[in-house]
Amino acid sequence: MTTPLNNRRWRLVRRPEGDIAAGDLEFTTAPVPALAAGEVLVRNVYLSLDPTHRIWMSDRDQYLPPVEIGAVMRGGGIGVVEDTRSERFARGDIVSVGLGGWEDYTVASERQLGRVRRLDGVPLTAHLSVLGSTGLTAWYGMVDIGQPKAGETVVVSAAAGAVGSVAGQLARRRGARVVGIAGGAAKCRWLVDELGFDAAIDYRAEDVGAALDRHCPNGIDVNFENVGGATMDAVIARMNTFGRVALCGMISTYNHSGPVPGPADFARVLMRRITIRGFIVIDFLPRAREALAELTPLVAGGELKWKAHVVDGLENAADALGLLFTGAHDGKLMVRISPEP
Amino acid sequence: MTTPLNNRRWRLVRRPEGDIAAGDLEFTTAPVPALAAGEVLVRNVYLSLDPTHRIWMSDRDQYLPPVEIGAVMRGGGIGVVEDTRSERFARGDIVSVGLGGWEDYTVASERQLGRVRRLDGVPLTAHLSVLGSTGLTAWYGMVDIGQPKAGETVVVSAAAGAVGSVAGQLARRRGARVVGIAGGAAKCRWLVDELGFDAAIDYRAEDVGAALDRHCPNGIDVNFENVGGATMDAVIARMNTFGRVALCGMISTYNHSGPVPGPADFARVLMRRITIRGFIVIDFLPRAREALAELTPLVAGGELKWKAHVVDGLENAADALGLLFTGAHDGKLMVRISPEP
Repeated sequence: MTTPLNNRRWRLVRRPEGDIAAGDLEFTTAPVPALAAGEVLVRNVYLSLDPTHRIWMSDRDQYLPPVEIGAVMRGGGIGVVEDTRSERFARGDIVSVGLGGWEDYTVASERQLGRVRRLDGVPLTAHLSVLGSTGLTAWYGMVDIGQPKAGETVVVSAAAGAVGSVAGQLARRRGARVVGIAGGAAKCRWLVDELGFDAAIDYRAEDVGAALDRHCPNGIDVNFENVGGATMDAVIARMNTFGRVALCGMISTYNHSGPVPGPADFARVLMRRITIRGFIVIDFLPRAREALAELTPLVAGGELKWKAHVVDGLENAADALGLLFTGAHDGKLMVRISPEP
Repeated sequence: MTTPLNNRRWRLVRRPEGDIAAGDLEFTTAPVPALAAGEVLVRNVYLSLDPTHRIWMSDRDQYLPPVEIGAVMRGGGIGVVEDTRSERFARGDIVSVGLGGWEDYTVASERQLGRVRRLDGVPLTAHLSVLGSTGLTAWYGMVDIGQPKAGETVVVSAAAGAVGSVAGQLARRRGARVVGIAGGAAKCRWLVDELGFDAAIDYRAEDVGAALDRHCPNGIDVNFENVGGATMDAVIARMNTFGRVALCGMISTYNHSGPVPGPADFARVLMRRITIRGFIVIDFLPRAREALAELTPLVAGGELKWKAHVVDGLENAADALGLLFTGAHDGKLMVRISPEP
């Protein structure tokens, strides 16, 4: 490659205050640098958009360094190797990029990349969702932390989301009663009719506490928590002795500034001997094989349901991110940057 | 026994609002009923006074039914069998009474009792403290939940208390750096000079957060939490990734009415992947042998330090209970009801 490629990219130019606003991210271009030894040039195909992007944009205390002002916005995705100075990756390989950027092309070190093996009848987008980070998040949070047993009651918040929908199905497969909390009648119907949830609560139309009382007559044993705030409080208030909270996210609080206090009635954690465990999927990636051993055949066989919500065009990424906070998306949110190979 | 014994007893006649007040408990007398088959008459010798009494006096959500208004105040202790209709206990046996009462004599079923085997050179009071519920609480909270490793930093609140002092020593024995939070210079000196804590923070004289910064330069890996509220917040704010909180008690909140919210910055639990686990010693009693296997030889050999604060006379029990909330006691608080056998 002799002509430098033009690389469109989103840079973080301002930390959001409250909701993400136009002007927090800036769409620019830059030449793609030459590869050093061990590096690979990836043409990005799909970019994953996740609630954690809002965290990375802030300078709050977090699990990775915040994205620096002026830097390309951090993101994970799937792409195709276009050029390589690595022994391990060849042109045309399909790869996952763990911590890449919102850009057309990423110059990645070998260590940043995973190999994606396409499966017959499974769309590539599955590897960025149910067989990617979101599926692994669901698996480790539910299986390792939630540990649902047959006959127990499990409540999943943001249950129609990319993580929650998989987490709930995994609990269902273990014989638990699964109740999802989601926004809107269509999502709730999908949970019950398509995914086999025992019940779904539309937080926009019902009082969550009253609905939990109705749908969880034996209390709640496991909470897979994606929302935080009042939703989490309503669940914890109904948890049984020895309950487990897999604290995966608190999207309802990400647009707040300043600290957000934990469970409104913290004494219950003591009295009911509840375990709350915060987790981030990156800690589990070395064990990904274990989760994929269950997820892959279920996805290939169509037994595990999932949806992708694909927005076309890198230029639309910043607007698309906002969908996560209004719930206007339907399935794992991602941006198609370039055509599938 | 033909003449019914006169049984002095404390009854709960009113639920405390805020601090326990004179008039919440009433000192009365009643005859001791005759024994039914399988029952044992215990002359109580020592009554354990613990923060959990404040919980039992309230009607908040809790881990056992609240003590009913008019009922004898619930309590655990050690006593001597004075009469028996049980095959398993003989007159003169020394027994522990798990859920007895604040009274001279308790009519107990066999199942309520444990056998106390005196050890050479170990005072009987040890069996109500370091070898009793408080020692077991410390052991399970620290060993099972805290899981301190050599080189890690452990912070214990109410560290000079009956539970905290043992918990800290157990962490020290596992090679952790142990920092205690306690009230007053004398208690702090005891922790460092006698118990081998690496540092102690006098919360009455110092800013706890600043002192934690000074004494925990590598952050905090384990929090054995007895206090809750602002003390707990200061510790959690400094916890490392994969930190563990053994939530044993929240004495600072027991006199509040209404729910008390949990960690002021709950997002940190997610970002740092912290595990918080509430626990109550009664869940672990079936496994007591495991803890006593470590504790008993350490106590017999004088390697584990502990103190009892004995108040004489059942009539003084209600006043003595207040000491727990001002910290004016020094060691495991108990009431001597009758002479040691």
